Amino acid sequence: MQRKILVVNSGSSTLKFKLFALPKEEVIVKGLVDRLGLDHSVFEITYQGKKHSQEIPIQNHVEAVKILIQQLQDLKVIADVQEISGVGHRVVSGGPYFDNSVLLDEKSLKELSRIDEYAPLHNPAERKGIEAFAQMLPNVPQVAVFDTTFHKKLPLMNQVYSIPREYDEKFGAHRYGAHGTSHDYVSHKAAEFLQKPYDKLRMVSMHMGSGVSVTAIKDGHSFDTSMGFTPVAGVTMSSRAGDIDISLVSFLMEKLQITDIHEMLDILNNDSGLKGLSGVSPDMRDLIAVKDTNPNAQLAIDVFINRIVKYVGAYIAEMHGIDVMIFTAGMGENNPAIRQAIMDNFGFLGMKVDQDTNENGKGIRKISAADSKIAALVVPTDEELMIVHEFERLVK
Amino acid sequence: MQRKILVVNSGSSTLKFKLFALPKEEVIVKGLVDRLGLDHSVFEITYQGKKHSQEIPIQNHVEAVKILIQQLQDLKVIADVQEISGVGHRVVSGGPYFDNSVLLDEKSLKELSRIDEYAPLHNPAERKGIEAFAQMLPNVPQVAVFDTTFHKKLPLMNQVYSIPREYDEKFGAHRYGAHGTSHDYVSHKAAEFLQKPYDKLRMVSMHMGSGVSVTAIKDGHSFDTSMGFTPVAGVTMSSRAGDIDISLVSFLMEKLQITDIHEMLDILNNDSGLKGLSGVSPDMRDLIAVKDTNPNAQLAIDVFINRIVKYVGAYIAEMHGIDVMIFTAGMGENNPAIRQAIMDNFGFLGMKVDQDTNENGKGIRKISAADSKIAALVVPTDEELMIVHEFERLVK
Repeated sequence: MQRKILVVNSGSSTLKFKLFALPKEEVIVKGLVDRLGLDHSVFEITYQGKKHSQEIPIQNHVEAVKILIQQLQDLKVIADVQEISGVGHRVVSGGPYFDNSVLLDEKSLKELSRIDEYAPLHNPAERKGIEAFAQMLPNVPQVAVFDTTFHKKLPLMNQVYSIPREYDEKFGAHRYGAHGTSHDYVSHKAAEFLQKPYDKLRMVSMHMGSGVSVTAIKDGHSFDTSMGFTPVAGVTMSSRAGDIDISLVSFLMEKLQITDIHEMLDILNNDSGLKGLSGVSPDMRDLIAVKDTNPNAQLAIDVFINRIVKYVGAYIAEMHGIDVMIFTAGMGENNPAIRQAIMDNFGFLGMKVDQDTNENGKGIRKISAADSKIAALVVPTDEELMIVHEFERLVK
Repeated sequence: MQRKILVVNSGSSTLKFKLFALPKEEVIVKGLVDRLGLDHSVFEITYQGKKHSQEIPIQNHVEAVKILIQQLQDLKVIADVQEISGVGHRVVSGGPYFDNSVLLDEKSLKELSRIDEYAPLHNPAERKGIEAFAQMLPNVPQVAVFDTTFHKKLPLMNQVYSIPREYDEKFGAHRYGAHGTSHDYVSHKAAEFLQKPYDKLRMVSMHMGSGVSVTAIKDGHSFDTSMGFTPVAGVTMSSRAGDIDISLVSFLMEKLQITDIHEMLDILNNDSGLKGLSGVSPDMRDLIAVKDTNPNAQLAIDVFINRIVKYVGAYIAEMHGIDVMIFTAGMGENNPAIRQAIMDNFGFLGMKVDQDTNENGKGIRKISAADSKIAALVVPTDEELMIVHEFERLVK
């Protein structure tokens, strides 16, 4: 019998979903709730190639789930809610409590409520989504898949910060990383594509969406990753600052007369990165469009590339070389100029770009030249499919 | 006529000094005041190979300067205070106001008082030292030499943080770096030693004292550097955390029930790094002594090396290669095991250690093998001599 698994990614004002039909792993429906809890909420769903969109008041995650279930029935995607075999949720941080994906029950739901502080911008919203589904579909098994799981095998050396050791032992103050589901997926796809054993490859995977992270993979597991205790750390992102001197937090609070540190962190999460540097937009495409006349847009692009190049260089050094570079997610999959700019920095290690496959072509492919000493691949990510696999692994 | 220049490095509870005789640039006296303002203050001075040490109450920087001048006369180093032709002061940060060394006058002394916040752990104490000398030797020209000057030519891309651009334009919220006087000195010495033109070499200089910083030098100037807005950023240091996720500042404040952010920053400056990770000591020699039986000491050593290797790798990537690695300051000059551990990571780029010159020998020397693709040098630093040169440049 065909089984249907719903995969959900909840934000504070969005709820994205995809409905997979198994065993074919086919996406039969996808869509999102946008502006959840705000004016002019929108429900959008695509089914059989047709997009249905409506403005409808949606106050909270519970209402969003109600409308989603109703729409699935109205569009005759399902005749009955019981046709939904399960729900898989993306959760950014498992904090110190979740080392792996989990089938949600009373105990794990309670533990989940304790880890908001490990990804304060993501986890609370994801938890609301999970709680809404638990309330609306109480008899349907639900699974949480954590972006941090893939990084659980980081060598201790790369997990710790140089702070009193007891802060880690007592409070879990260490590096968790994120985008693990994506790095896991694309690195396995890359090894498969190259027909090489996964654990023999030294890879650097660049997930470049609105969040951006760089992960080194060695000996078959995550070896280092740019995001840290939370997803604000690492390279320059759309609106997140990445690494900055901790002294700036207090310095800027004094200058800006901000008394609540969370307000300062909010600026460093939401008004910084490409958006803050350029003063133009958090979207790389907008910056590229104006870079010739706007020096701050050009600066933001230069910084974006430079920070990624430095992380890649750092990981090459600690892995003592590199076999494969992987580009994935929005910019990674769709921006050949950014890929080329990054790859060009590694000409000194024998990296050669294949202009044709870099600029043209679709799907998973090699974009390094035949005589390049490092293979470079574009690998479209599919975090939702990974969540389906995790669901199947835990529930079947 | 022989001229005498006093070089001073003031800390909050220390005042280090060296008296140079020109034109020979000979150090005729050196010493320090220790535990300044605390119980059991000590005055220590070495003259003609003999060290004189005494416990004597020293309440503040003014008293320290008084005692120093008195001792120079008592020991007959000078017959009269007028024999001191000038004083050169080390200052960690010039903040946004000082692009270069400066002859101190009323105006610059006033400006100096405005930049404490750019190196809150160093600048206020250095300023107290300067003010004490200005009070005690009002007719002697004094020069301030900033650790940030060498980094003024950082490319904008490497100077900025990915934060709203206006925070830099309005408040000077960018990367200043530090140890510039040392990196400047040793990199010029290295080029001279190798008989290569300075501006043609791609160098990475590692200053490894209790503060540690890594600087990339390209096209004849500082190209990137690991310390940031303040000297707390970058690699793991004796007691400073280096780079950590900014979210940890608020997370740890909540866990530790600290309400003043400066108290938290104090922990991250004074109780972190090797000291915090190991729980043993901020001194690498102590960690090496116990590493076989203390896993946290071993972890601290591993992290220390790993963070330097990553910065070096990052700089090699953005410089598209490297010609010279330079080791300097306490650990850089005196710890062959640490140097070897760092260099061994770059075997994949053709770095080969010369065991003999690495483990034996003194002074400036090549410690890479004849067939190494990267030259590695130990270059003893001499920030005081650089300060003398700056004095001469400005005053002569």
